[in-house]
Amino acid sequence: MSARSFKTSIRVTWAETDAAGVVHFSNYFRFFERAEEEFYRALGFSFTDFRSRGLWFPRVEAFCQYKKPAGFNDMLDVEVTVEELREKSVRLGFTVSNKETKDLLASGYLVIVAADRQTGRATQMPAEAFEKLKPYAKQVL
Amino acid sequence: MSARSFKTSIRVTWAETDAAGVVHFSNYFRFFERAEEEFYRALGFSFTDFRSRGLWFPRVEAFCQYKKPAGFNDMLDVEVTVEELREKSVRLGFTVSNKETKDLLASGYLVIVAADRQTGRATQMPAEAFEKLKPYAKQVL
Amino acid sequence: MSARSFKTSIRVTWAETDAAGVVHFSNYFRFFERAEEEFYRALGFSFTDFRSRGLWFPRVEAFCQYKKPAGFNDMLDVEVTVEELREKSVRLGFTVSNKETKDLLASGYLVIVAADRQTGRATQMPAEAFEKLKPYAKQVL
Amino acid sequence: MSARSFKTSIRVTWAETDAAGVVHFSNYFRFFERAEEEFYRALGFSFTDFRSRGLWFPRVEAFCQYKKPAGFNDMLDVEVTVEELREKSVRLGFTVSNKETKDLLASGYLVIVAADRQTGRATQMPAEAFEKLKPYAKQVL
Repeated sequence: MSARSFKTSIRVTWAETDAAGVVHFSNYFRFFERAEEEFYRALGFSFTDFRSRGLWFPRVEAFCQYKKPAGFNDMLDVEVTVEELREKSVRLGFTVSNKETKDLLASGYLVIVAADRQTGRATQMPAEAFEKLKPYAKQVL
Repeated sequence: MSARSFKTSIRVTWAETDAAGVVHFSNYFRFFERAEEEFYRALGFSFTDFRSRGLWFPRVEAFCQYKKPAGFNDMLDVEVTVEELREKSVRLGFTVSNKETKDLLASGYLVIVAADRQTGRATQMPAEAFEKLKPYAKQVL
Repeated sequence: MSARSFKTSIRVTWAETDAAGVVHFSNYFRFFERAEEEFYRALGFSFTDFRSRGLWFPRVEAFCQYKKPAGFNDMLDVEVTVEELREKSVRLGFTVSNKETKDLLASGYLVIVAADRQTGRATQMPAEAFEKLKPYAKQVL
Repeated sequence: MSARSFKTSIRVTWAETDAAGVVHFSNYFRFFERAEEEFYRALGFSFTDFRSRGLWFPRVEAFCQYKKPAGFNDMLDVEVTVEELREKSVRLGFTVSNKETKDLLASGYLVIVAADRQTGRATQMPAEAFEKLKPYAKQVL
């Protein structure tokens, strides 16, 4: 049984392209994060909800593998999966594909940690976030 | 007698270009601000120095006129002038030219206001900043 | 009788904010252009349609006035108006407002020129684009 | 005997920060590429030199691990190493540290492929580039 995933779409803007006529590789990380933001919104929380409890969610690892380029005006499908859910961190997987051709363009992941804003130390993920991510998790560790 | 100005150089990176093979127009505003940051550093202060007094420096107007494109790897000269210095705001002028050809590429301005972080209201510019900008001001109003 | 306008919505992402906790001023120009891109798409053409005829559409002027800040996750309404339509250029007006509070956040314009890719010279706008923009134009000059 | 490396410095601008008050994680990839550009310039070539031969240099993998945040105005040292040099690709390693505190902030890599612009296929790296990278290579494969 495959785990649930979240999907969102992103239209490529002119400003995201570079002189090779394709989306600059760094922008895929922004697409990943944008999909993550939409995912959290769909789950009913956001990066900033836990600020009052002195928490934030820095990224500790980011990886992307590029298969095919995306161009201006392309519609992209971004799929988010919860690869590993831990007490203090989550590894989200991402695939970016061309909505029309269905070609896989890029895939990668982000490792996000719950951290205390003061000390910078990893800390327990808020229970609400953990519980909402759980049904999507391929592994709970 | 012409007023003093500040100059800095910026190398165009690949990420700043777009699919037309030239620097994306929005990036000139980042070049302006980067030159402003260097200017303040040369004067001995920074955006964040007045944070403890509850001040920040939002931009209230931004304008740029584009003459010729800049490409990847071009070295740009950015010149900053203090067009108008007021009690609560400053209008900085900027010209961007190609260091090698001397061609004028773009010119424009930013209007920056000293604002109270809580209320968002315009407030007196810090005396240190005002005094340091004064020798560069074409007009003190 | 007021001219027609085009409206689109933009969700503020984390990457678009700066250390003041608000959208960086340069990103409003990207919002303007993104709304322009959606506008053209709604009209049935795009920046790249006229490439084969050796045309592109550089921006020759960009202006923005900032009223109130936008924050992470805010939904923005961007309205595009055709302020002036000329043989070789168009001035598009933009207003950005908060979808929820209806507060006006920023307004400005872009002047876009039809240019020959080889010479860089302003040239006649493609008839299709001109005709599609016309019903929106406050002034045809 | 340790391999040679290349070093360059980058000043953090306001536009590169996000609402957490630190450099947005995606910008480290731009720092990597900027250092790569400076490295090639120091070696005497650039991305665009091989365009006339129909070559470009897409990134096929990008990775970064984040240790400590960087803030506005921080001076960063970026060190570039040539982890693996192959006939058709190169893996560049990067470390970003705070120039003042010497703290390691982030490290990662980019895998860059020589590709035919028409077919998109990996192809032989230009001999000039290969020879200039060789003295820096930890492994030639």
